[in-house]
Amino acid sequence: MSADVIVIGAGSGGLTVAVGLSGFGKKVVLIEGHHVGGDCTNVGCIPSKSLLHHTAHQDGRDSKSILAKVRERRDYLRDHETEEFGSMDNVDLQFGRAKIVAPGEVEVTDADGSTRNITAKHIVVATGSSARRIPVPGLPDDRYLTNAELFEQDTAPGKLVIVGAGPIGVEMATAFARLGTEIVVLDAAPRVLPAMLPEASAVVARSLDAQGVDVRPGIVAKRFDEATNTLHVGPLDGGETGSIANVDKVLVAVGRVPNSEGLGLEEVGIETERGHIVIDDKGRTSLDNVWACGDVATEGGTTHAANAWGRRVIKHIIAPVAPAGPKPLHPAVTYSNPEAATIGEQPAEVPSDVKRIVVDYGAVDRAFTDEIGEAIIIVDVRRFRGDVLGATIVGPRAGELISTFSLAMKNDIRFSKWYGTVWPYPSYADALGKAVDAYMRESLPNVHKEFAAWALGKLKRLR
Amino acid sequence: MSADVIVIGAGSGGLTVAVGLSGFGKKVVLIEGHHVGGDCTNVGCIPSKSLLHHTAHQDGRDSKSILAKVRERRDYLRDHETEEFGSMDNVDLQFGRAKIVAPGEVEVTDADGSTRNITAKHIVVATGSSARRIPVPGLPDDRYLTNAELFEQDTAPGKLVIVGAGPIGVEMATAFARLGTEIVVLDAAPRVLPAMLPEASAVVARSLDAQGVDVRPGIVAKRFDEATNTLHVGPLDGGETGSIANVDKVLVAVGRVPNSEGLGLEEVGIETERGHIVIDDKGRTSLDNVWACGDVATEGGTTHAANAWGRRVIKHIIAPVAPAGPKPLHPAVTYSNPEAATIGEQPAEVPSDVKRIVVDYGAVDRAFTDEIGEAIIIVDVRRFRGDVLGATIVGPRAGELISTFSLAMKNDIRFSKWYGTVWPYPSYADALGKAVDAYMRESLPNVHKEFAAWALGKLKRLR
Repeated sequence: MSADVIVIGAGSGGLTVAVGLSGFGKKVVLIEGHHVGGDCTNVGCIPSKSLLHHTAHQDGRDSKSILAKVRERRDYLRDHETEEFGSMDNVDLQFGRAKIVAPGEVEVTDADGSTRNITAKHIVVATGSSARRIPVPGLPDDRYLTNAELFEQDTAPGKLVIVGAGPIGVEMATAFARLGTEIVVLDAAPRVLPAMLPEASAVVARSLDAQGVDVRPGIVAKRFDEATNTLHVGPLDGGETGSIANVDKVLVAVGRVPNSEGLGLEEVGIETERGHIVIDDKGRTSLDNVWACGDVATEGGTTHAANAWGRRVIKHIIAPVAPAGPKPLHPAVTYSNPEAATIGEQPAEVPSDVKRIVVDYGAVDRAFTDEIGEAIIIVDVRRFRGDVLGATIVGPRAGELISTFSLAMKNDIRFSKWYGTVWPYPSYADALGKAVDAYMRESLPNVHKEFAAWALGKLKRLR
Repeated sequence: MSADVIVIGAGSGGLTVAVGLSGFGKKVVLIEGHHVGGDCTNVGCIPSKSLLHHTAHQDGRDSKSILAKVRERRDYLRDHETEEFGSMDNVDLQFGRAKIVAPGEVEVTDADGSTRNITAKHIVVATGSSARRIPVPGLPDDRYLTNAELFEQDTAPGKLVIVGAGPIGVEMATAFARLGTEIVVLDAAPRVLPAMLPEASAVVARSLDAQGVDVRPGIVAKRFDEATNTLHVGPLDGGETGSIANVDKVLVAVGRVPNSEGLGLEEVGIETERGHIVIDDKGRTSLDNVWACGDVATEGGTTHAANAWGRRVIKHIIAPVAPAGPKPLHPAVTYSNPEAATIGEQPAEVPSDVKRIVVDYGAVDRAFTDEIGEAIIIVDVRRFRGDVLGATIVGPRAGELISTFSLAMKNDIRFSKWYGTVWPYPSYADALGKAVDAYMRESLPNVHKEFAAWALGKLKRLR
């Protein structure tokens, strides 16, 4: 059979592309090897946020019914999406494993082993990623969890060690602590959410501590002793320095690996970089008319990145000569308590022509009425010019507040132009006004110094 | 004694002006007749949001301890503010009743009846507003509440009739329903939050209904029969059509009246309009060097409006020749469940050159995981040009989402320029992306029609 476009993978990126192109009248074959919705719907964002929601406002310890409810909601959404995308005009949803056998040709292998070939002008690869698995010597399979197995647990474990203090590790520490699970979080890095600025990590770390989570930075799992249910741990570059007794399960959340095996990429000459399919600004791979988006590609990492780059692919398949435009700017949000969000650059060392504004988000009046603890906003602004280069928010509704930065930075609204915006009182957005006020207060009286720092920085950047 | 500036009233507007001007080295005398913080801190935003917070995640019926806690937090903030502003350099906080006796001269009457006069070049009036009191024949004083008395109740009333379905009425219906109070809300208007679009009011009304609140639009209180604790009610232009038995208290929340009596305004020739001090774009009254901001003035209405206009007053006292610039755009938020927010224009009838985008905010994925019910976003966009004219949001975190509109509208970011912004998944801000997508989907294919509608509208507006 033949189509206009073959999309491999029905997760966030693939669905975006399939639905978008079908809207432009393209005949799309959408091939999925497992479940419609990808990791996000099935073992990622949806069950994790649902679990965070169901545990947010209770010390409810009935983990069995909560976990069942989470799966029920997830299955409902999955079934709904499967039906929706399975019955769309112009989208032919097929289950099977896809392999690119030639430019414009994909071989699909069914569950029973039979194969069939499909041809199309365009192929879009959106096969996503899987949890990175690292060995924990001695740990039996039934105690080794990743996000793929976590939500299938019948009840919350009594004691859970989470290996990895990134977004998944921190979110699940938050949720399972509320279910009554005793939690230890390990990470080779010296702090939680190591991609964030140290000040922001510190707020999250203190909050986890207050929630009873035992965080051990700079420590990794060494080996598990099944006879005593003990996990032996120590620094990355050293021997065992401690142990955790009575461990029921270990959740390994140390990053993702792209699902690029078995797709025939090497055979047809599609360039990859550490497993990720290399794409250009338009979403094109190194092979003509083969495109990629989402976690399998070099610009992936989140559901919204997959969506944004999927939209690029649609645009350039429909309008091949259109310019790509600047790369989309991606916010990143960890839905911990409090939420932690970033956008743009967060250099550990602030360049001399950048002003770093740090405000106590916990001091706004709504934080007072809602008895929020610590919260922080950090904004990096180019001196004198006022361009916003990056922002970090840890506190309530950070996911919404960072979105204001996303819109403003996309539209080059300098921070001085934020001044005069009326923020509703007493909303959490008041904190943005506080940050702008701090910026104006610190910049206006020193405009000559600001100009000199900017000019010097400009010269440096030009050199 | 003399000063540079006399500020009358230590609420949101007055504090903004006093602190701001003192920062510029002005000697300020700040006169307060009651409590520092004004209605907002004492009987408004702070205790109401604190109460909403303390009742949000429980069916806790221990109203006595919750109300005590709310007062305790409020008193803490008031004391903190009194100390903070009482010990500032350049700000001389004095308690007493102020009256303008001549241009540049204010007479202050102490509690003991003694008076003293203060002179200054500038006078800023920021005396705020009070609850509008309407007669309810037969209702004894101890059953008649406004926001000034509400938070002083020892326990939640068993049955509370709220007269007025505006922001205060709706918020307090939400909070007291959670405390176990049986609630009936009356309003002369045909729907709750009558300043909002009917579709938005309907979402809030259904939500109140689901919370067990009995809303009776088009109905007002006629008389109270103390012998039977019965409130007789009926339509505004008619007789009694019904009654509510076993009423403990009646909360009257039918708007505000400016605190402009006794200030000597008429005597010195300061123009007022239905009690509000008339101000121009710079915050000036009709009398030279007398300024006003906040609820007592014509541009008041909210804490953030008082703050924004207070900032204008500061600017023009410091820099008299600076241009006023466009009037600040004020969002308005009701912190009900769900939150309800608006900004800009919301005409009941959509002009032909305006496209009204309506999206189901409840259909975003985060609303799914968090099991949010109904929610809605309405955006009015000038056809073809894409200028955002107004927005209405009813749903979770509406106060933060409307803030994105506040920033964007202030900076004239057309709605088409919102397209391409990456909204973090699965944040509530996703709903903004949904609205932008809907706009692009509906506008792009009809660009000729959109242009014609815009051009015709432009001609009409020019005529």
